[in-house]
Amino acid sequence: MSSPLRLGIAGLGTVGVGTVKIVQRQAALLTARTGREIVISAVSARTQGLDRGVRLNDYAWEADPVALAKRDDVDVFVELIGGDTGPAKDAVEAAIEAGKDVVTANKAMLALHGQALAEAAEAKGVSIRYEAAVAGGIPVVKALTEGLAGNEITRVMGVMNGTCNYILTRMQSAGMDYQTVFAECEKLGYLEADPTLDVGGIDAGHKLAILAAIAFGTKVNYDALKIEGIERITIEDIERAADMGYRIKLLGVAQNSGRGLEARMTPCLVPESSPLGQLEGPTNMVVLEGDSVGQIVLRGAGAGEGPTASAVMADVCDLARGSRLPVFGTAADTLGDTVASNTESPAPYYLRMTLVDKPGALARIAAVLGESGISIDRMRQYGHSTTNAPVLIVTHKAARDALETAIAAMQNTGVLVSDPVALRIEEE
Amino acid sequence: MSSPLRLGIAGLGTVGVGTVKIVQRQAALLTARTGREIVISAVSARTQGLDRGVRLNDYAWEADPVALAKRDDVDVFVELIGGDTGPAKDAVEAAIEAGKDVVTANKAMLALHGQALAEAAEAKGVSIRYEAAVAGGIPVVKALTEGLAGNEITRVMGVMNGTCNYILTRMQSAGMDYQTVFAECEKLGYLEADPTLDVGGIDAGHKLAILAAIAFGTKVNYDALKIEGIERITIEDIERAADMGYRIKLLGVAQNSGRGLEARMTPCLVPESSPLGQLEGPTNMVVLEGDSVGQIVLRGAGAGEGPTASAVMADVCDLARGSRLPVFGTAADTLGDTVASNTESPAPYYLRMTLVDKPGALARIAAVLGESGISIDRMRQYGHSTTNAPVLIVTHKAARDALETAIAAMQNTGVLVSDPVALRIEEE
Repeated sequence: MSSPLRLGIAGLGTVGVGTVKIVQRQAALLTARTGREIVISAVSARTQGLDRGVRLNDYAWEADPVALAKRDDVDVFVELIGGDTGPAKDAVEAAIEAGKDVVTANKAMLALHGQALAEAAEAKGVSIRYEAAVAGGIPVVKALTEGLAGNEITRVMGVMNGTCNYILTRMQSAGMDYQTVFAECEKLGYLEADPTLDVGGIDAGHKLAILAAIAFGTKVNYDALKIEGIERITIEDIERAADMGYRIKLLGVAQNSGRGLEARMTPCLVPESSPLGQLEGPTNMVVLEGDSVGQIVLRGAGAGEGPTASAVMADVCDLARGSRLPVFGTAADTLGDTVASNTESPAPYYLRMTLVDKPGALARIAAVLGESGISIDRMRQYGHSTTNAPVLIVTHKAARDALETAIAAMQNTGVLVSDPVALRIEEE
Repeated sequence: MSSPLRLGIAGLGTVGVGTVKIVQRQAALLTARTGREIVISAVSARTQGLDRGVRLNDYAWEADPVALAKRDDVDVFVELIGGDTGPAKDAVEAAIEAGKDVVTANKAMLALHGQALAEAAEAKGVSIRYEAAVAGGIPVVKALTEGLAGNEITRVMGVMNGTCNYILTRMQSAGMDYQTVFAECEKLGYLEADPTLDVGGIDAGHKLAILAAIAFGTKVNYDALKIEGIERITIEDIERAADMGYRIKLLGVAQNSGRGLEARMTPCLVPESSPLGQLEGPTNMVVLEGDSVGQIVLRGAGAGEGPTASAVMADVCDLARGSRLPVFGTAADTLGDTVASNTESPAPYYLRMTLVDKPGALARIAAVLGESGISIDRMRQYGHSTTNAPVLIVTHKAARDALETAIAAMQNTGVLVSDPVALRIEEE
């Protein structure tokens, strides 16, 4: 049997504690599977001496994660602190510099600084592994980087923020508006300290940026993504979309359009009968598409102690087994720049608007769409008792530019009561 | 850059040709991802000179796959011949003996001879990889062996034969009986030369046996599985099950019950709203459950040229990248024997029967169930114009033994018109 693999774990929040628990509870199993003992040498967190529900006395304590990262008795530095800069990044850089492998759950750090970290790690001959950074327990980084390595990836899609999906499905099932469900989530502790990371689509965007880099072999570039949160989704949109056979999801889509990377994390409509449409609550789902494999769908818990620690340990086991590959699946110094496409591929759109209730109003809107080359697939005008008429339109596939031209032109018709809501429909 | 990885491909059917196509079409991508050129040195098939829709002239030809396996210019022997013995096994053994790594799609060979092959390979220090043997393009072997390596696996489930799922969903959607859909499949070339491999549950059973060995760290043992095909599923059962909110699937379930391995590939009812229940057509789905990760669901094409070749190439890429692990995830010489549990964990059951239409008949059946300790969850008696009364019962959770005692006792009541149909209900 080989020598033990010695971990230094920085950050003892939910995921850190979950990781310690697995190392302790499954010691025999881990050794059987990897051929090595997996042990913890030292840990680090902001506060020592808290009761974290797990025995830590056998491990050395380091107040400073950078010191932990450099310890001679640490082979793998496990970074579970979080935050794109600060102690997390300092300690990861120190670990790389000291020739240690790194396992991290830090999506923000990788999305914003992944290329520099990967270049540093590969120059030093060490690994950075981050299965836990994307979609919690779902082994999606591995599926994409290794399981689909023979494929030219054509598209990556996914619902990758459990809180947003919980909010959207709860709004629908309970008929509650966004503000009410948001307040409920706050009370239940479902939100990050800065909730815009969740509901603003930023956290999910970080994950998509990482997957896009692997999928298309380009430098991770969060700034190339279009990000839009769910804050402006109303219960009315959810109900109208359902009425048309759709569900609203905060959906990430990345594809290589030939004119560059087209990547966005935005609220979209998906068919209610599709796997994505049927995804309820905080569960995550990632859809991977390759030229040979077709479509692969992965579903599981996107967060939580057990699932995220499971992903951390998968990376640790890979390192214990000696598996090594470039951080983003392709040598970092050969990755091309990510060029953001300046157009979006055509799609059907959902348009909701309220018109003044006078003859010819709807005809004006239809004419404006027609003038922009957008044809209408389905249209519904809802009953109304006031002077305003709610109208719903599902278009045939249309270019985003044409749609925006049409919406601008609508503003000049004098028949709109308020700005139209336009949401992209992502067919699978 | 490292030296090229040289493949010898034996078997040029659908999957073999698909593999050659990927090596040719994605040469640059494969090299970028693995850091090595991946080349084909030689190929082998039963008949030379056929037009297989792909250029083979650049490769040496070997009539005998054993000779191919031993060639000095072959690093990885890719076995795509099929069959659990004969040329496939002979050639794999020759490759191992010659110190070559093996990639195979051969589920029958691994299910029946996997332990001996794994021991031979590990003694020689070579790998046997078989992502393509289970669920086609879905990277499930990797997800289980690596992605969930930190978990004690509690259950593995899956729909892993696309033909069976096609038949069952087609019966339902078209309202056609088994024989008619089977004949349709035969005409369309959807069935194996020996169709009992598909519809008898054997092919899917081979896959489940492999996953069970990985999941529970025991020697692969196909004989420990209970196998039952779909040949006796009637359109009436499909419709009655739908009426109660269920779908019928050829479902594999493997779990470690504490009294040994409980593994079966049998027709089961699953809730129509569950991911398995919603699986239509030839698509495969595997559900993996671990103590930390919870439930992971994987979905994709279970067969076909592109998806299966994608899985073959994932294994080739892993070998090119230098990833190596034991054949079943744990060193073969440390795997315990598989002990088949002689009981099945309790489950709800679906019972369909036809009773003579006389007063007290149903009461007799209910009494017999009660005497065996089985309580009834839901019951429906269907309208009838003859002297017979179709009856449907969904029980609460019951032990299989108790159920069989009850069914035997029913035979003595004199109220049964024919043998009851009993199908296990697998809740997710």
